[in-house]
Amino acid sequence: MSSKINIGIVGYGNLGKGVESAITQNEDLTLHAVFTRRDPSTLKVNSGVPVYALGDVEKFVNEIDVMILCGGSKDDLPEQGPALAKHFNTVDSFDTHAKIPDYFETVDATAKPNGKTAIISVGWDPGLFSINRLYGEAILPEGATYTFWGKGLSQGHSDAIRRIAGVKGAVQYTIPVEEAVDKVRSGSQPTLTTREKHTRECYVVLEEGADATVVEQTIVSMPDYFSDYDTTVHFINEQQLAEEHSTMPHGGFVIRSGKTGTSSNQVMEFSLTLDSNPEFTSSVLVAYARAAFRMNQNGETGAKTVFDVAPGLLSSKSAHDLRKELL
Amino acid sequence: MSSKINIGIVGYGNLGKGVESAITQNEDLTLHAVFTRRDPSTLKVNSGVPVYALGDVEKFVNEIDVMILCGGSKDDLPEQGPALAKHFNTVDSFDTHAKIPDYFETVDATAKPNGKTAIISVGWDPGLFSINRLYGEAILPEGATYTFWGKGLSQGHSDAIRRIAGVKGAVQYTIPVEEAVDKVRSGSQPTLTTREKHTRECYVVLEEGADATVVEQTIVSMPDYFSDYDTTVHFINEQQLAEEHSTMPHGGFVIRSGKTGTSSNQVMEFSLTLDSNPEFTSSVLVAYARAAFRMNQNGETGAKTVFDVAPGLLSSKSAHDLRKELL
Repeated sequence: MSSKINIGIVGYGNLGKGVESAITQNEDLTLHAVFTRRDPSTLKVNSGVPVYALGDVEKFVNEIDVMILCGGSKDDLPEQGPALAKHFNTVDSFDTHAKIPDYFETVDATAKPNGKTAIISVGWDPGLFSINRLYGEAILPEGATYTFWGKGLSQGHSDAIRRIAGVKGAVQYTIPVEEAVDKVRSGSQPTLTTREKHTRECYVVLEEGADATVVEQTIVSMPDYFSDYDTTVHFINEQQLAEEHSTMPHGGFVIRSGKTGTSSNQVMEFSLTLDSNPEFTSSVLVAYARAAFRMNQNGETGAKTVFDVAPGLLSSKSAHDLRKELL
Repeated sequence: MSSKINIGIVGYGNLGKGVESAITQNEDLTLHAVFTRRDPSTLKVNSGVPVYALGDVEKFVNEIDVMILCGGSKDDLPEQGPALAKHFNTVDSFDTHAKIPDYFETVDATAKPNGKTAIISVGWDPGLFSINRLYGEAILPEGATYTFWGKGLSQGHSDAIRRIAGVKGAVQYTIPVEEAVDKVRSGSQPTLTTREKHTRECYVVLEEGADATVVEQTIVSMPDYFSDYDTTVHFINEQQLAEEHSTMPHGGFVIRSGKTGTSSNQVMEFSLTLDSNPEFTSSVLVAYARAAFRMNQNGETGAKTVFDVAPGLLSSKSAHDLRKELL
């Protein structure tokens, strides 16, 4: 074993590839292996590290310091999170907000008795946005918090369109309404409806013979996903979809607007403008992998969230250097 | 003693008054007393809590959970910080960046052996801005960090003008250059000189008979303070100074611009727009007072900085509620 922190990746999709790339930007971390549910012999990874079957993972308990779980929140993590936290320190990006409390308990139940540290729901939302919602509320208790997303590609909404009969391909962008953002930034603490905060823009490729009017109506009237928003549908061809809509930009804002003293408006804002959503999420996961290792060394075991992680644990620099250079 | 966290304030200037006001926004905190170097009988405080002489402070070791030190970094804190951390958990806003490492050591030397927790250099810069510099660097290791201040009133620069012969009164605003901020936000990682980042705007009241040209020249050529900046001087009368320049707005931006993968630009930004700089700093101090108390309860003693404080410790909510409501 090297003196670096040894990382394992579970799952080699966009997130796994992003983690593999982000690790090369951190000199104190090294990628040890990738684990997959596919046949390992069929998977060629960019860095050339060995690929193993996920089923063999327990053989590596002495070689890997932190396992970064890059699977999805719907099917992969609910199973893999608790299973792997039994044997490894882990970091994951579980992002089904409503199910986080349950997921936390399940992971804690295996991590804690086995002396492992498992940081769940890491990324930017949940993650950095959550931290900023917390800082905002704790520092300005009398106020309101606003989260805006976009401009960005929403995977869930794109998938919903693709499931419509007659649709061959589609992407959906979530766009914050500029006037709403400006109102919030002014400190006026407006009450905003769902429709006033974001618009949705869809780029759709039809199957041959499909009826554009029917598809458009199906999209804009879809409950939960689109009916509460002003939605625009653009029909494009396959080539346009491939050429103009293949990247995964995203971002957004968390704004806390509060009052102090008798009448002072105080506005805190955190924003992200991301060319690549999965690459950024991966970079956050990698920084928290360092923190998971250190917390485990300090005896802080069990399930954790970004709320439990002191900022200094994320940096490769010593506490002394951080005070000198960044404070 | 109540079941709330008992706070003491040391020093009753703008910051002390801001802390007094901020505590009323936090139901789990209560202000117990104000301590002053002045004659306590001459000091009437807004909340009506008792005022005591700073010299008597040791009588209150069993009554106060956290002491918030509201003195200045130049003369008050270097003495009061280590002296009070011997007897109390403390929070202060020591903001002389270059002297932070030494100050940390001095405070640690009294806090640690006495089992006290002392969080130093709390506020927004140092403080929240520092945290964002750290998050940016840890998450996007290949990139550049930019801090812009303003538009805001700079106390130090205003004082420097007031010391010039012939000047009766003055305020100075630091203003970030919009084109520079835009360039940074674009992800292009520009190299910016001091002059390209900020301009300085001065509003000056002259003594009768003073020579405006001489005063203006003295200001714009002043080394360290003004000579590296494009500085504009406006001469106004006393009434204008009182009516139009009596508030203390401030703010600024921390922007981290980095690259991930092969070519994705990723930009993280944290910004503040503050009607009242001292009231906001006070609100940050109060949230960290809660954290100081909790860290002390957990046995985490000695000097600490914002880098050592997990975000969750700042909130009055339980870890479970934070996961459910804010993650």
